[in-house]
Amino acid sequence: MSEVIPEKYADLFEKQAFGNLTTLMKDGSPQVTPVWVDFDGKHIRINSAKGRVKDKNMRRDPRVAIALQDPANPYRYLEVRGRVVEITEKDADDHINKLSQKYLGNPVYPFRQPGEVRVIYKIEPQKVSSMG
Amino acid sequence: MSEVIPEKYADLFEKQAFGNLTTLMKDGSPQVTPVWVDFDGKHIRINSAKGRVKDKNMRRDPRVAIALQDPANPYRYLEVRGRVVEITEKDADDHINKLSQKYLGNPVYPFRQPGEVRVIYKIEPQKVSSMG
Repeated sequence: MSEVIPEKYADLFEKQAFGNLTTLMKDGSPQVTPVWVDFDGKHIRINSAKGRVKDKNMRRDPRVAIALQDPANPYRYLEVRGRVVEITEKDADDHINKLSQKYLGNPVYPFRQPGEVRVIYKIEPQKVSSMG
Repeated sequence: MSEVIPEKYADLFEKQAFGNLTTLMKDGSPQVTPVWVDFDGKHIRINSAKGRVKDKNMRRDPRVAIALQDPANPYRYLEVRGRVVEITEKDADDHINKLSQKYLGNPVYPFRQPGEVRVIYKIEPQKVSSMG
């Protein structure tokens, strides 16, 4: 059931392209948010904090979708439907710092809240569409 | 149940900001696509073509979500969860030309396919979140 991200679009994960991540609310309705994102060669990775809407949604229902547009050309984009296959706090602090470096050029994530527990969500691509 | 788009974010609909629109597949899983979008003062309007995945999804299940980021500052964004309250072919050709003018500076939509039937979807905002 899993599908591979085409090599042709792998560059989108190197650019400062936001992912627009959709999760499902308790009643099955969708919720969408711009997020930082990267790719570990197999899974798309998101980083959020324990207790947030997205966190609760992905723990309840692993079905997600994410779209990335090329910042240099919005008509070149990747759409992925997939499934959260792993949720972990392990290395999540390092990961948010890495994303901060990528998106802000700041090696230490500057928006941390007191008591916040960072979490990594690994998404297995199941249906990939692309344009441009 | 309907909620108003804050005046403070109305400018996002004047800019060339894409909407990332989520619809629900038959099995309830989400699908997300970057789309052109505008606002008629009450409803968020999308334009697609009859028979596409998005079209079928919104006819089956009117629950959608859409996020718009400010092209000048991606950390300023609007997230709307809502419901498609009207689907119409009336004035849909004029509407896609208007969107073409807004996003491409081209008063005639250049991507029309032979036999394509354009459709407007009007979304009533039900839950609005914003950042920045």
